[in-house]
Amino acid sequence: MTAASNTYDVIVVGGGISGLSAAKLLKANGLSPVVLEARDRVGGRTFTVQNKETKWVDLGGAYVGPTQNRILRLAREYGVKTYKVNEQESLLHHVNGKSYPFKGSFPPVWNPIVYLDFNNLWRTMDEMGKEIPPEAPWRAPRAEEWDRMTMQQLFERICWTSTVLRFATLFVNVNVTSEPHEVSALWFLWYVKQCGGTMRIFSTTNGGQERKFSGGSGQISEFMARELGERVKLRCPVCSVDQSGDAVLVHTLDQQSFTAKYVIVATPPALNLKMHFTPELPPLRNQLIHRVPMGSVIKCMVYYKENFWRRKGYCGSMVIEEEGSPIGLTLDDTKPDGSVPAIMGFILARKCRKLCGLSREERLKKICEIYARVLGSDEALHPVHYEEKNWCEEEYSGGCYTAYFPPGVLTQYGRVLREPFGRLYFAGTETATEWSGYMEGAVQAGERAAREVLCAMGRVPQTQIWQAEPPCAEVPAAPFSTSFCDRNLPSVGGLLKLLGVCGAAAAAAAVAYRKGLLPWS
Amino acid sequence: MTAASNTYDVIVVGGGISGLSAAKLLKANGLSPVVLEARDRVGGRTFTVQNKETKWVDLGGAYVGPTQNRILRLAREYGVKTYKVNEQESLLHHVNGKSYPFKGSFPPVWNPIVYLDFNNLWRTMDEMGKEIPPEAPWRAPRAEEWDRMTMQQLFERICWTSTVLRFATLFVNVNVTSEPHEVSALWFLWYVKQCGGTMRIFSTTNGGQERKFSGGSGQISEFMARELGERVKLRCPVCSVDQSGDAVLVHTLDQQSFTAKYVIVATPPALNLKMHFTPELPPLRNQLIHRVPMGSVIKCMVYYKENFWRRKGYCGSMVIEEEGSPIGLTLDDTKPDGSVPAIMGFILARKCRKLCGLSREERLKKICEIYARVLGSDEALHPVHYEEKNWCEEEYSGGCYTAYFPPGVLTQYGRVLREPFGRLYFAGTETATEWSGYMEGAVQAGERAAREVLCAMGRVPQTQIWQAEPPCAEVPAAPFSTSFCDRNLPSVGGLLKLLGVCGAAAAAAAVAYRKGLLPWS
Repeated sequence: MTAASNTYDVIVVGGGISGLSAAKLLKANGLSPVVLEARDRVGGRTFTVQNKETKWVDLGGAYVGPTQNRILRLAREYGVKTYKVNEQESLLHHVNGKSYPFKGSFPPVWNPIVYLDFNNLWRTMDEMGKEIPPEAPWRAPRAEEWDRMTMQQLFERICWTSTVLRFATLFVNVNVTSEPHEVSALWFLWYVKQCGGTMRIFSTTNGGQERKFSGGSGQISEFMARELGERVKLRCPVCSVDQSGDAVLVHTLDQQSFTAKYVIVATPPALNLKMHFTPELPPLRNQLIHRVPMGSVIKCMVYYKENFWRRKGYCGSMVIEEEGSPIGLTLDDTKPDGSVPAIMGFILARKCRKLCGLSREERLKKICEIYARVLGSDEALHPVHYEEKNWCEEEYSGGCYTAYFPPGVLTQYGRVLREPFGRLYFAGTETATEWSGYMEGAVQAGERAAREVLCAMGRVPQTQIWQAEPPCAEVPAAPFSTSFCDRNLPSVGGLLKLLGVCGAAAAAAAVAYRKGLLPWS
Repeated sequence: MTAASNTYDVIVVGGGISGLSAAKLLKANGLSPVVLEARDRVGGRTFTVQNKETKWVDLGGAYVGPTQNRILRLAREYGVKTYKVNEQESLLHHVNGKSYPFKGSFPPVWNPIVYLDFNNLWRTMDEMGKEIPPEAPWRAPRAEEWDRMTMQQLFERICWTSTVLRFATLFVNVNVTSEPHEVSALWFLWYVKQCGGTMRIFSTTNGGQERKFSGGSGQISEFMARELGERVKLRCPVCSVDQSGDAVLVHTLDQQSFTAKYVIVATPPALNLKMHFTPELPPLRNQLIHRVPMGSVIKCMVYYKENFWRRKGYCGSMVIEEEGSPIGLTLDDTKPDGSVPAIMGFILARKCRKLCGLSREERLKKICEIYARVLGSDEALHPVHYEEKNWCEEEYSGGCYTAYFPPGVLTQYGRVLREPFGRLYFAGTETATEWSGYMEGAVQAGERAAREVLCAMGRVPQTQIWQAEPPCAEVPAAPFSTSFCDRNLPSVGGLLKLLGVCGAAAAAAAVAYRKGLLPWS
């Protein structure tokens, strides 16, 4: 191994979607990149496994939907097709020990007070989101105030009913694999906003979970890696990055060295810590990377002989509000041709930490038991196969789906999230401004970082670093309309005030009537 | 270099006080330890610099006080003397643009409502602390509830006056170099408790800041390192720990390898991330180390020709409540013989993040300006020398003084903080149960981890892993007594209720009097 043979224009640290899409763009622009990947596979937090029981299964990131145009563009380029997650039959909402079939994005509500409370919750979150610039949430007019609060605190201010407060917890658990009391309100509102709002982020149809890739999301990274060929080095954990010399010098754990003009670090921010830097990172970045933990999730696929839930009129989507249930949300994971019937479920946040200690078999048993209860069918107790992936145990992810920001961090450290340091540039889905936390964000971040390097080399003007993506024709995005009612209905608090005012007016009217002051009296 | 020459009984990762005291104890028990230190010096978060301007200066951990018996025992063994931080003259409390001289631990209060509010704050925190087991805060009866809250939320529940709320913020800033909205209430209450309570942690005389070491705290590590001789390897950042074979195999960044039967990791928990582990850490530890950020502080020493503050009747301690002031707390840093007059001040938490970007000279200027205003003397504007250390920029500390726990982390991950993993054991002040975060905690943790290894080798019974430390005769601890009044005075809320009850009683009495129902009427 000579020094010259390991010299490149750009070293990309991390062979997930972000790093690979950075390297792909650099290569397309005539540069010579290399991707150093710690694991023995590419894909990072996406991971498709093939076996005879499942044909293929996405153990990591899997879902795509409208407005995620960059990842859809990449898929299209490689001929990877998408298919719709089954949502034809009824979804099920399980709460207080009972299952309620429903259609649409959110379980319906019959109690008018709870209805007002839900309506106000989604409306308030989306309206607060409108005040948050996706590229600089720390510049929101009330950034400091919102960042000092946990999402739990904000929910307690917004919500009047325990029903809505409990569902709001599930909403945080499902979307960011953490607890409302763990995350900054500013950060979570930003996160929902940059995904397109409460409806877009949570919906299957017309939302973030509308589709999956036929054959698995892992193919996208594999195709990019194939295109990059020898430029992707597996089993190469980077342990040092030295930019004190003319070229940046990078060492891997197995003592290979690589040099380049620039480095793109395409790992979750906290995993920057796996590397030793010369010179040291600047103080704010040095502290930022201690402050952005990864969420907690076990992704669980239970396989059955038959798709018994569709027979019963259920699509396989379950929203489960029960502390004893390991799973909070499920989606049908049957193949688009109806083969390999399966249900995908997430063990989220506090439940993930609690159930980490069980054996695989114990988890499967608990999962089947709750499915049997929610679906009202003992067939759920007889799986034919089980796949699970606990992302908390992955050293080179640290957790999934993405990093969360505890209170106070986004306003104090957010500015340096993607601020270059010397010849180091930062990618990874956490640095994105649209669908950060998703495959889409990974592509946006990777390509942006690649263009930052191209700009530094004088090959791309500054104004072209950030690029909008044309919509994908095959996966159109329908707007979410809100009705006049939804926009104008009072909150529960508003209603009480209104009743108070009306009550006072009525009382005044009664008094006036008795005193003969009213015109019609 | 042969494999055999790098074979030891125990590899200690980290040459701070914790790692060195572990190695010292192992060696004293006839074992063969080696200490691998990333930096070119020992001492970790303690760092004494010698130069002609200062003689010597502690740029890191410096203060010791009563009940910190382990570090005092070590100092005594090496003949390192302590001296009292000057608190003879008046302290100064600067608030609303004015300076108020005072004596004692906390600024006095004249407004009776504010007095009740302060009294209730300290009492409540100490009483809540009593419910928290120092060795297992997650087992406190209300652990979950308190861990879901930030300290900010708890303060807002306890405090009735803005005066007290503002001081409470300073109290968190000073003690744990972070903001009340950043930290879990359970964690902060635990932290204060395991230091001996609100009075012990905050006091100079009879508290955590009573003394310093003549010649600097760095000497203790240097003496231990001298004793260990060739067993301490500097400039040896550890990048991998492999316990898949018969012996544990450790690699450093410069490609040295070491093998041992056991490893003690004596770094801040988050810096475990600097190492690549085979096998991977268990899921909860893998995630814990993403969730325990280090605090933010710049320690600043301003040197003057003369000790002009003592001339004016001030000891040099200033408690500064002013958003525009870089410094929150100062202490006299003059040498015990009266030479090298200096004031030590901390730039804490939010202010540290804000002032990171300034130049050294700009910070000095701002600091001198506030000292001039607080001390009422332009002499403060004319320093003869300046030393500062921004601990946020240290790759191998990550910040100072210690790690903090954001909401939700202590109950979910605290259990694994010092849980051994295979042949890895965990030291570092963060794993201590008395004065965690201090030099004292570092010694407790290091010696405990050493005894865990001795126990695993069958040389020490399980019951002797944890050992109480006899009190240091030279630094006696006086108990903090609370008066009957302080224990029984109502909170402001209690007072209002009382007044309400009295008011109602008075009103009832008035009515009764008019109606002639009272016996004396």
